[in-house]
Amino acid sequence: MSSPTPTFETILYSVEDHIATITLHRPERMNAWTLQMCNDLRAAFDLTDRDDDVRAVIVTGSGRAFCAGADLSGGSQTFGAAKPDKDTPVRRDTAGLVTLRIFDSLKPVIGAINGAAVGVGVTMILPMDVRIASTEARFGLVFNRRGIIMEGASSFFLPRLVGMPATLDWIYSGRVFPASEALEKGLVSALHPPESLMDAARALAHEYADNTAPVSSALTRQLCWRMLGASHPMEAHRAESRALMARGGSEDAVEGVKSFFEKRPANFTDRVSSLPDVFPDWVDPEF
Amino acid sequence: MSSPTPTFETILYSVEDHIATITLHRPERMNAWTLQMCNDLRAAFDLTDRDDDVRAVIVTGSGRAFCAGADLSGGSQTFGAAKPDKDTPVRRDTAGLVTLRIFDSLKPVIGAINGAAVGVGVTMILPMDVRIASTEARFGLVFNRRGIIMEGASSFFLPRLVGMPATLDWIYSGRVFPASEALEKGLVSALHPPESLMDAARALAHEYADNTAPVSSALTRQLCWRMLGASHPMEAHRAESRALMARGGSEDAVEGVKSFFEKRPANFTDRVSSLPDVFPDWVDPEF
Amino acid sequence: MSSPTPTFETILYSVEDHIATITLHRPERMNAWTLQMCNDLRAAFDLTDRDDDVRAVIVTGSGRAFCAGADLSGGSQTFGAAKPDKDTPVRRDTAGLVTLRIFDSLKPVIGAINGAAVGVGVTMILPMDVRIASTEARFGLVFNRRGIIMEGASSFFLPRLVGMPATLDWIYSGRVFPASEALEKGLVSALHPPESLMDAARALAHEYADNTAPVSSALTRQLCWRMLGASHPMEAHRAESRALMARGGSEDAVEGVKSFFEKRPANFTDRVSSLPDVFPDWVDPEF
Repeated sequence: MSSPTPTFETILYSVEDHIATITLHRPERMNAWTLQMCNDLRAAFDLTDRDDDVRAVIVTGSGRAFCAGADLSGGSQTFGAAKPDKDTPVRRDTAGLVTLRIFDSLKPVIGAINGAAVGVGVTMILPMDVRIASTEARFGLVFNRRGIIMEGASSFFLPRLVGMPATLDWIYSGRVFPASEALEKGLVSALHPPESLMDAARALAHEYADNTAPVSSALTRQLCWRMLGASHPMEAHRAESRALMARGGSEDAVEGVKSFFEKRPANFTDRVSSLPDVFPDWVDPEF
Repeated sequence: MSSPTPTFETILYSVEDHIATITLHRPERMNAWTLQMCNDLRAAFDLTDRDDDVRAVIVTGSGRAFCAGADLSGGSQTFGAAKPDKDTPVRRDTAGLVTLRIFDSLKPVIGAINGAAVGVGVTMILPMDVRIASTEARFGLVFNRRGIIMEGASSFFLPRLVGMPATLDWIYSGRVFPASEALEKGLVSALHPPESLMDAARALAHEYADNTAPVSSALTRQLCWRMLGASHPMEAHRAESRALMARGGSEDAVEGVKSFFEKRPANFTDRVSSLPDVFPDWVDPEF
Repeated sequence: MSSPTPTFETILYSVEDHIATITLHRPERMNAWTLQMCNDLRAAFDLTDRDDDVRAVIVTGSGRAFCAGADLSGGSQTFGAAKPDKDTPVRRDTAGLVTLRIFDSLKPVIGAINGAAVGVGVTMILPMDVRIASTEARFGLVFNRRGIIMEGASSFFLPRLVGMPATLDWIYSGRVFPASEALEKGLVSALHPPESLMDAARALAHEYADNTAPVSSALTRQLCWRMLGASHPMEAHRAESRALMARGGSEDAVEGVKSFFEKRPANFTDRVSSLPDVFPDWVDPEF
């Protein structure tokens, strides 16, 4: 059982049938990004991680846009009006605070890009596991046209997802491109008509949530995302060996093999809230 | 001349025409993985590395399967029955022992995936250089459906081969997928009808073995695989500069340029068993 | 205004309409690589970085070839005749000196591959941002057929651009392949008929140079290329946060937002020659 549904200022949050749905919800502003939205999203991913009832997360937007980028209603003040000097402490990019939080998510995260995704509307989806989009969606990494700069740790994530040529072409040009190009370059994995996008996202979430062990998913997520920056496969071997030892003796492994031989769905009972530590030497880097 | 053909318990090993073929050989068990197979494969790659007569390696399976994954005939005991406590030393994943050995191979390695490849049947092929498959092959990274976890250092290798979205989709879902999807996502480079798969693998092996210098191949293999985890291209520049200096003054370079001007095949005589050390500061990481 | 056009021995250099064009210019030798060409290219990229009038760089070749590889007119002496011993200092690979210089370029670099690209003719284009080619171009990473070894830090760059299977297939076989295969594997992003290649390259350069802030482009280039070797997205987050703070308070950001609301082209005035330092802890690695 989940706790009572929490409420947020800029997003909607619901859990149904083991799937959490986080909906960017400032439809009158095309879900434009604010500091509050940054804080709400971080809090929402804290919830999905803590709630053993949640086995997958969908992120989408209210209304016709996914996220139109930073809210520019404050004009250029949005990006900080004062020229910082040497003694000004560095302000952390709010998009990066969210993408680093999603990087650490213990549940699979599916982006359902329902419409325009601009600026942080694109960078925030990069550390998600799979992205699908409406055929009506369009994308723009417009930073350099505004005189600012890519954010959300996208200089790390985007080349690893779509390669350097597509990354640099999109950032250097700042042009808006259609869903078909996002699909072709690998920014999204599939396109769906607007009216069936959420059904497709939920089908994917159930495929991930229904047949596999949640603890295995959580460890998979840690392993793959952390190893993206590894310098040698031995780092993977160390963590996987610990993970195998922890999981090999688990109730889930007994059930997994038993259900396989009995040709029935498995009923996995181990809980992500008591995840084994397979990276005993991992230290989260400081800002 | 090769030494007398060695024999193994779970694999076949032969060398013909400079090509070593390693065949997983437990056809009555669909070549299911055992500790013995792990040990046999590691020993086989020690042989191919030491034998200057071997210029390329093919790995395939006997019968209709490539490898059906861990042998589950011992039930869930396969993955370790006892819950380890803090003082239990970490058991090394046997799939990882093999993929790390292939990572260090000095000869090009071609996977010829002749049929079902499940679990370690997929992860063991990731550090090979090129993979081709039978049109009848199918693939499954089923770990999370069994309540266990990805292995073989696949959390390092798989995202670098097929990208994060395909990696995570396959692992989260645990579903079995056809050869066509393996081709589309880049897990394999080409499909062939079952009856011509081995001919295609041998043609590729000859393309790599017949026209190029074996020492150049061995250094290529070290350079590319080790640089996969590099933090700056300077690491490649250092090793390549040493390699160029060692190779520039070699008999092979003289023959390579001479044969080019004489428009005839080169006859390279330098031997991999006396490979120059182009990574003087390299330290293999400890487990 | 640019300074008077500098002249070089092996390349042509011109700047027009904010676009620098560097043309390999030894057409009687198919633009074959020499030590002088290495030095000329490094000097040319020093110029493009220093000249605030330059907003993008095109690299192409004179005549029918792009670059036929190392000039072999000296025979195998080209690669160094003497067997080096332990005390010989390591000679730096000249291709690597150039690719590391391009890696550090502050302006977007577009390769326009007008014809045959062999050996260093391929490796030198890897750290460029985008590569387009003539339909008549062909490519060959022929090192191992000459008994030598891949260079130009290509063991770092090539797998990150086209993946390991294509990299290793090309290097192991040393075969020459057509422009269509270069496109299919991602070595180039588009093909054009020979007569329209330079127009296409210039159109791309203008797309990058005309609508976006040059300082944003320079920071983008540093961020993406340096993060290619990062071990955690936090490294990107640190640098991007500094970059956002520096750019958020800039004249360019004010103009970027203002021009957006006024629906007119922006007129960016910040200069790359006074680039903010967003990697205060970055140390260029020693050879």
